[in-house]
This record gives sequence, C-alpha cells and structure tokens, in this order.
Amino acid sequence: MVMAMSERAQRIEPFYVMKILQQAQQLESRGQSIIHMEIGEPDFPSAEMIIRAGKQALDNQYTHYTPANGLPELRAAIADSYSDQAIIDPGRIVVTPGASGALQLVMALLLDPGDGIMLADPGYPCNRHIASLFSAQIQSVAVNEKTDYQLTAELVEKNWQENTRLVLIASPSNPTGTLIPQQELSAIYQLVQKKGASLVVDEIYHSLVYDQQVASALSQGEQVFVINSFSKYYGMTGWRVGWLVMPEGYIESANRLAQNMFLAAPTLSQHAALAALSEETGVELKRRRDIFHQRRDILLPLIEQAGFRVKTVPAGAFYIYADCSAISDDSMKLCDTLLHQAGVAITPGADFGSNKSASYVRFSYANTVENLQEGMRRIQQWINEKS
Amino acid sequence: MVMAMSERAQRIEPFYVMKILQQAQQLESRGQSIIHMEIGEPDFPSAEMIIRAGKQALDNQYTHYTPANGLPELRAAIADSYSDQAIIDPGRIVVTPGASGALQLVMALLLDPGDGIMLADPGYPCNRHIASLFSAQIQSVAVNEKTDYQLTAELVEKNWQENTRLVLIASPSNPTGTLIPQQELSAIYQLVQKKGASLVVDEIYHSLVYDQQVASALSQGEQVFVINSFSKYYGMTGWRVGWLVMPEGYIESANRLAQNMFLAAPTLSQHAALAALSEETGVELKRRRDIFHQRRDILLPLIEQAGFRVKTVPAGAFYIYADCSAISDDSMKLCDTLLHQAGVAITPGADFGSNKSASYVRFSYANTVENLQEGMRRIQQWINEKS
Repeated sequence: MVMAMSERAQRIEPFYVMKILQQAQQLESRGQSIIHMEIGEPDFPSAEMIIRAGKQALDNQYTHYTPANGLPELRAAIADSYSDQAIIDPGRIVVTPGASGALQLVMALLLDPGDGIMLADPGYPCNRHIASLFSAQIQSVAVNEKTDYQLTAELVEKNWQENTRLVLIASPSNPTGTLIPQQELSAIYQLVQKKGASLVVDEIYHSLVYDQQVASALSQGEQVFVINSFSKYYGMTGWRVGWLVMPEGYIESANRLAQNMFLAAPTLSQHAALAALSEETGVELKRRRDIFHQRRDILLPLIEQAGFRVKTVPAGAFYIYADCSAISDDSMKLCDTLLHQAGVAITPGADFGSNKSASYVRFSYANTVENLQEGMRRIQQWINEKS
Repeated sequence: MVMAMSERAQRIEPFYVMKILQQAQQLESRGQSIIHMEIGEPDFPSAEMIIRAGKQALDNQYTHYTPANGLPELRAAIADSYSDQAIIDPGRIVVTPGASGALQLVMALLLDPGDGIMLADPGYPCNRHIASLFSAQIQSVAVNEKTDYQLTAELVEKNWQENTRLVLIASPSNPTGTLIPQQELSAIYQLVQKKGASLVVDEIYHSLVYDQQVASALSQGEQVFVINSFSKYYGMTGWRVGWLVMPEGYIESANRLAQNMFLAAPTLSQHAALAALSEETGVELKRRRDIFHQRRDILLPLIEQAGFRVKTVPAGAFYIYADCSAISDDSMKLCDTLLHQAGVAITPGADFGSNKSASYVRFSYANTVENLQEGMRRIQQWINEKS
C-alpha cells in the first residue's frame, strides 16, 4: 500500500553529483581506483585552530541551545568581518544551520506560493529546488560566457514578470566560478529596489577569489539579503554553520522563522566558527586559498588540452565549468562513461539547470594536484583511445 | 524603504516562551533573581560519554559532510534501538538537524499548499507553524483531560475534512506530558490508512516516560512516520540531531529532500549521538530520567497546593500543564506578572494553541528540586499577598 506523497516532494530533483558519488564509492569498494573531481567540498579537514575551539567548547560543556539567531559574539564577529566595506548591525545577522538553512530562511521570508524567483541557469541546484519546495515559480534566465554566466540588469529587466518577487545572484557562481561585476550588481540592486522586489546574493564562495579583492553586496546598501557560510572558505562543511544578513525591517520575522524552522544552529559549531574568524586561522585559510589558486592554474590548461572548452577563466570557488561538446553531446552519458571506463568522477551540467546542460560538465579541484593530474591523464587517455 | 515580506513570514507566530525567557534574562542582568520554569530543555549538560565521543570525532578530523540521510552506523544503531518492538530497515531512517529538521522534512514530503493537517490543541507550536510555512491548512482539534489531551479515533473521524492529508500525534505531548493509549493509536493508525492519508507520530519525549513501558508507534506497522530526537532524553539539544522513520516507499524522495534542505545533519553531532545510544550512556540517561521523575512527584503537589488544577498526571516529558483559572483568567498576563512580581518564569497556554489557552500555563521541571521548590514558594507567596 502506498500513501500519498506531496507534489512538491515528487517534483524535487536529485543532485546527479550524489548519484555519481555513490556509484564511485561502489566502484571503490570493489577495488577500483576513482579520482574524485565531482565533490563540492574542500578536501582538507577543518583547520587545527577550529578543531581546538570545538574541543574547548566541549570542555566548557557548551551543549545547550543558543539563541535562535545565534551566539551574540559570533554575530558580532561576522558583522565585524564586513567592517572595511559596510557597517552591519549584528542584529541584522541570523546564524543558520549551513547556507542551506539561510537559503530556506530567506525563501520562507520572501516568497509566497506562486511568487516568481529569477535566477541564472546554470546555477546551484538547491537554489531552485528550495524555492520550488516553497511553491514559488522558478524563473530561470539562460546565461552564457558573454556575461560571465551572471545575470545583468538588462537580462533582469528583459525577463521580469509581473509576479517576480526575488532575484538571486551567486558570486562567485557554482558551477562556473565567475563573478558579477560591481557595476552590474549596482545596476541590479537599483533595478530590483525600484521594482519593489528583493535581491538575494549568495556569497558562499566570496572569500575564495584569487586574483582580485571583491566587495560584498552589502557595500551596495542595506536593501539586500546576503547568504554566506563557514563551509567552503572556512573549511567547515560538516559543522553546518552559515549566516544570513538582511535589511533591518526583516529582523523580527526572520528570528521568528528561525525559532520555528531550526530552533538554532549547532552550538559547538558556532563556537568553532568564532575561531574560524580569528586572525590566526585566517593565515591558514589564506594558505589554503593559495593552494586552490595553484590547482586552478594547473587544472585549467589540462582540461583545455583534453578538448574541453573553458570559455571564461573562473575567478574563484573550486570549480571549472567546461563545454564538452567536442567530446560528447550528452554530458550525462559522458560522466557515466568516464566514471566507469576512466575511473574519473565529474558532474554533468544537468545538475545546474537545463540551459545547454548536455554540453557541459563541472570539474571540482577540491583534490590534490597529483590526483587532478592523474584524473586528467586518465581522461586524456580515454579520449585518445576512443578516437 | 520597506521591501515585500511573504505572507507566510508575516503569519508566523513567535514562541511566547522566548519572550518570557528574554525578559527573564534582562531582569537577571539587572540583578534580579529569576527561577526558570519556562525552558523546554534539560538543565544537565550532555553526558560525559557523549562529550568524549565528540572530542574523539574531532581528534579523528571528522569534519566533512556525512551522507544526506546520516552516518550509516548511526542509522543502524537507531534501527537497532527499536529491535524489541519492530524490525526497522536502517534505509527507512533519515538523520536530521534536530527534530525540527525531521518535522520540516515530513511536512515537505506529505503536504501541498491547501492540504489539511489535523493536530491536537494544545500542542507543540512548531507543528502548526511549520505546516503553515508550507502553506498547509491547520485543522486543530480541541482536546481536554477526558482524552488525556490526545486525539482519539472518534475525534479524528468527526473532524475529518475532504482535504485532510496528515494526522499528527505527539506522545508524550508537549505541553501536557500525556500519552496516547495503545488501542487508540491502533484505531487511528487503521483509520488514517483507510482514508489514504498519513500518520505522523512525534516521539521526542518517548523515552522520558516514568511509570510504564510504552511501545513506539512503529510497532503498529510500517505505515507511519515517526519523529524523534537526541535533544531531550539524550540531553543533546545544542548538537541538533534528530531522525525520521518512514515507510519504505518514501525513502528516495525523503533523501532527495534532505539533500536539498540540509545537505546533512552536523557530522560531529552524529558521531556523538552514536555514543548516546551506547549501553554505558544508557545507565546515565536512566539516572537522569529518575531525577525528572522525582521532580515531577515533588512539583505536582506544590502546583496543586498553590491553587492550579492539574487534570491528568503527566506520564512523562518534563512539563506540567495546569489550569490557572482559579488564580487568573488571563494566563498571558499571569505569566508576565509572576515574572516581574514573583521572579518566576512559566509559559502561557497561548504558545500551545487557542483552546482555552487563557486558562492554562505550562510549568517545566527542567530545573533542580531546590529551584522548583523556591519557585513555587514565590508563587504561593505572591498568591497569598494578592488575596
């Protein structure tokens, strides 16, 4: 006997990357060697100072709930981390269970059933999936290398619909690692405000940009929602701590939502996150960023030599989004074949939308240089044998 | 300038207990002594074995994501914890960020906008708030001491509406601490199944029952969703780990939802939760349960002596739901007055619904016997002075 499932649950798509990962692990359990270039998670464990702070919190028996919006000292430290760009009242910050929590919170805060959310395709799958969970209408805008895979004010204006309530930007973007230019962000900020809608900027990879200093969207003014996380740059994926910065007028409702949705983010993780913001940890995190930088510079030419086309150099994150059409016009099948025949796991474009996704794959360089080189050697060899 | 907020966010109610707590803390910061009988959280820190396991996980650098449905060994241990009552395939379990996560997951899984969810009033506020977030229709059923504040098959049948998709039961209930009798649960299980709807049972306080052994709703059969948590009995509130057990047919969709909504529950917390299920920890947890038992037995007569009426002896949890109408017909005002004039924090009935809530308050005995006695001494004195 089958009971009734909601349409929203039936509608939700899997991450293909998870299927690839599961298959890769099955192959590994049978003794096959797999090079992982699919995973969206730093390969390092959390920095020693963070782990030490976690232990100290345990010694202090910090095992009870924190306030729903997070530890006051953590909110103050997060606010302080923006101090060279904008004065942020810590009250405007809610600490969340990962950026996933922040994403849920902001969508619950801004969208009613049938409201439209505009976002770039390709983009991070959860953005549209969570919006869809809340019965919003997904208004995907196809973007390409001409705008660095980002929305522009022109695209936003052109694709605006009567029910559009929210515009979401991710900079750097997952899967492309590309940034939105400051002047374009300013133009979108003004435009969205003029329309009486809301702008949400996902800055999860914001501190993982290599060749330039980038300002937070918070430097545009108060009328923006910024999502961030301790997962990627701070290397704290498994701890599940992120945050949302919002305009003043939303604080009370956001706190009420957070009480109901989460009660609070994990307490130990919040204490450890406080250590992640320290100067001492910062030295280690910058060292790790340099390693990602070096990997990008090594991986990018190898990908191009193998016959993939990378149309804009990714500025950050740890992803390279590559056109695979010279090798295959079915990226899903290509990923499957490379996994089984070459022992390399990469992610098909379909995870990130439907805009020419069959022609694209995502490489993650959250792996050692040796492994990245070995992975590309295997792919190159597979391509040579095929042709 | 104010941007648009969603109706769902505007609609969501605060927990009054949070306001009381905040006010209590403000009074304390000014040097006033407050006895806390409002908080729904064990006063003990996590047991030593649990803290030790957290440190061990940190030593092992377990700081990466786990699978979206949780650590396989934790799911196996949870399944095993039901083994005297039902054989549960670990695949039917999703580990979640607290019971809050399980609640969100099950509602997303089962409810579409406009679908009805039937639940008892009084009841835990998040149940109706999260359902409301997902645009479901709340179908509250007023319950009283005659049914131990629980739904019955008769009540479910009588209140059934065409759009009812889900019936939620909490046993023991928060705020009343009362249980649903096994035969009533069986009758509801059969009835809901006949209607083609879903039954969700919140067993968060299930292991905190004193005078009897109670079977999990999972012993009824497979067609039930059971929510549980490491927060209350296991004393791990700040760690944020709970779980959902579901019928086989929902596994894949639930895993997909969990990927999108949470990515995963906190990793360290899952390792620590594994230790919480060990026999060694069990000895300490049973000792703590005995302490709660003793506190109930001490507090209950003091509450009645003060002039409150407790109409059914709570079987578990750490709450006593008391009729305050002999003292005040406005429980919100009574709680406010007791806080400011007597220095005792308790929770008004309004947190738990609208069914005669002005005549009820909730006492929590998550505090020491000395403090509970002092709190009741203060309340008694305030009542004496008033009359």
